Amino acid sequence: MLAFVVRNHALAAVRKPSPRLRRGWALVRVRLAGICNTDAEILRGYHAFHGTPGHEFVGEVVDVRGAGSREKNNWLGRRVAGEINIACAALGFRRPCEFCRRRLKTHCERRKVLGIVAHDGAFAEFLALPIENLHAIPNTVTDEEAVFVEPLAAACEIVAQLRASAFRKAAVLGDGKLAQLIAMVVASAGVPVVMFGKHSEKLALARRNGSKTMLVRDNATNLKSSAMGERFPLVVEATGSPRGLAFAIALTEPRGTLVLKSTFHGTAPIESWPLVVNEITILGSRCGPFAKAIAMLRAKLLDPRHLITRTFPLSEATKAMKFAQRKSVLKVLLKP
Amino acid sequence: MLAFVVRNHALAAVRKPSPRLRRGWALVRVRLAGICNTDAEILRGYHAFHGTPGHEFVGEVVDVRGAGSREKNNWLGRRVAGEINIACAALGFRRPCEFCRRRLKTHCERRKVLGIVAHDGAFAEFLALPIENLHAIPNTVTDEEAVFVEPLAAACEIVAQLRASAFRKAAVLGDGKLAQLIAMVVASAGVPVVMFGKHSEKLALARRNGSKTMLVRDNATNLKSSAMGERFPLVVEATGSPRGLAFAIALTEPRGTLVLKSTFHGTAPIESWPLVVNEITILGSRCGPFAKAIAMLRAKLLDPRHLITRTFPLSEATKAMKFAQRKSVLKVLLKP
Repeated sequence: MLAFVVRNHALAAVRKPSPRLRRGWALVRVRLAGICNTDAEILRGYHAFHGTPGHEFVGEVVDVRGAGSREKNNWLGRRVAGEINIACAALGFRRPCEFCRRRLKTHCERRKVLGIVAHDGAFAEFLALPIENLHAIPNTVTDEEAVFVEPLAAACEIVAQLRASAFRKAAVLGDGKLAQLIAMVVASAGVPVVMFGKHSEKLALARRNGSKTMLVRDNATNLKSSAMGERFPLVVEATGSPRGLAFAIALTEPRGTLVLKSTFHGTAPIESWPLVVNEITILGSRCGPFAKAIAMLRAKLLDPRHLITRTFPLSEATKAMKFAQRKSVLKVLLKP
Repeated sequence: MLAFVVRNHALAAVRKPSPRLRRGWALVRVRLAGICNTDAEILRGYHAFHGTPGHEFVGEVVDVRGAGSREKNNWLGRRVAGEINIACAALGFRRPCEFCRRRLKTHCERRKVLGIVAHDGAFAEFLALPIENLHAIPNTVTDEEAVFVEPLAAACEIVAQLRASAFRKAAVLGDGKLAQLIAMVVASAGVPVVMFGKHSEKLALARRNGSKTMLVRDNATNLKSSAMGERFPLVVEATGSPRGLAFAIALTEPRGTLVLKSTFHGTAPIESWPLVVNEITILGSRCGPFAKAIAMLRAKLLDPRHLITRTFPLSEATKAMKFAQRKSVLKVLLKP
């Protein structure tokens, strides 16, 4: 099959055999894959990952190994999205780690992660995942919607971790694709959203989706002005930059909650005493509930297709990856 | 009266009139005052405070203004501790700020803070506080215990903010006086505590109070070794240094909770992505419930007097303040 791998900080095309299946695993033919900022991080060398990236996809189950015939029938031919963390049981360990025992499989100590940690991902014609990771996509949800299930689930994690609807307003920092999904999800919980971003076109999109917006020219200036200005009981940091954190802290009101979504690698200088004096809660937030994301798409509570800037054929993945890193670009898809 | 004020980064003795009382306020004769790390911060110039520091005290009510005779009788002659945040109503504002309306008086937007923000504190013969800030000290609690009510309440805030007893173990970072109180409070909730500190004598004290301890030589080395070692579901950062935060993050297990107690001013470089990947919750935690602290002392659940290194007469406050900043010293008291 055609697949792409990380080589010299870029994607390189290779030919290799389709993945072999363990018992309880499924072979998935990728229909669409999405490019995420984490993929750019991987190209920069983080996670020391040299396989096939790609963790956002919608695909079709074409083979299943070691399942009963009823389960096999249930999955073969189904369109699916897939959870990306592969935990103890699916990896063949008989004794689960502490976190699997506590049903925190996304924090499994031995986990492999689709397209991120030690397991080949979706920038290929086929991928393999444990059946337990799969979620069927309803017929009324298109491929272009379903490819957003993984990042949309990550956005939904915020609502899952706290009673978001209890907040009277929220600030979302960042105007990229994850920030846009977060703004949609928070707004769908009935919370008015103000998005702070640096790109006027992206902010215009957020306004069309119902958010207020604020153009940020420079974090330092804004830090000062925000000290005098509006603060928020709920702030979501999704700038994709380590420098967003200080601004996010300054925007959070006393006893407020700050949700961190950026996984950008790098350090930023932080003063911790305002967290203490204002008794702010910071919540790190990563992967989220796929079922919830699929239910939102099925109910047409939001439409992530506005975020698609362009779809490339898989064969042009190298070019697509470069295109995805331009400032004005939101979601870029690959179609095998 | 004799009082001390901040002058040239040190305490200077002055003679000044006793504080004048607003309606609903009490005049308190200070019996004992405690020196806190925040006082050292104030001498360094933080909070731009130039009045009389001191926010830990036990005293006796000697005058009350604008209260009914029954309430007056109730307070006159009583030994008291006092909450340090003075909010809208006590400052004479008819319309409460947003935080007072929400009963978050410790976050009042107009607040003055005893010995810290715009209101003279306890390094003096007398201080003034609103009656609503006072808590009576039971006869069975000595002055040497009662002077710890304020920092003990701050330690109790951790237990108030989260169900601490649900955690199977906890790490306390720091071995200073606040860290020692925190270790006692967390242990009294039935949670085994490991204290990480740099001073073997102070750690020995913590062991006598029932904690396990770990001598930390250097944060950077420990960061590396902790990556291989034990992690904790509950970590309390009370090192009093901005550099404690990175070590605290590394010690916190996935989905764990990190409570920040240090209000040291200064920045430290932080990588935020481990907070996201491990979905860590950070809780800023400041002032706490006085009633709970007094109840613990009355029930003899812990004895903070072990922490007293030395008591100076108030007239020697300048010397006492310097003494308090020596590495081996824990709590220093002033007796007017």
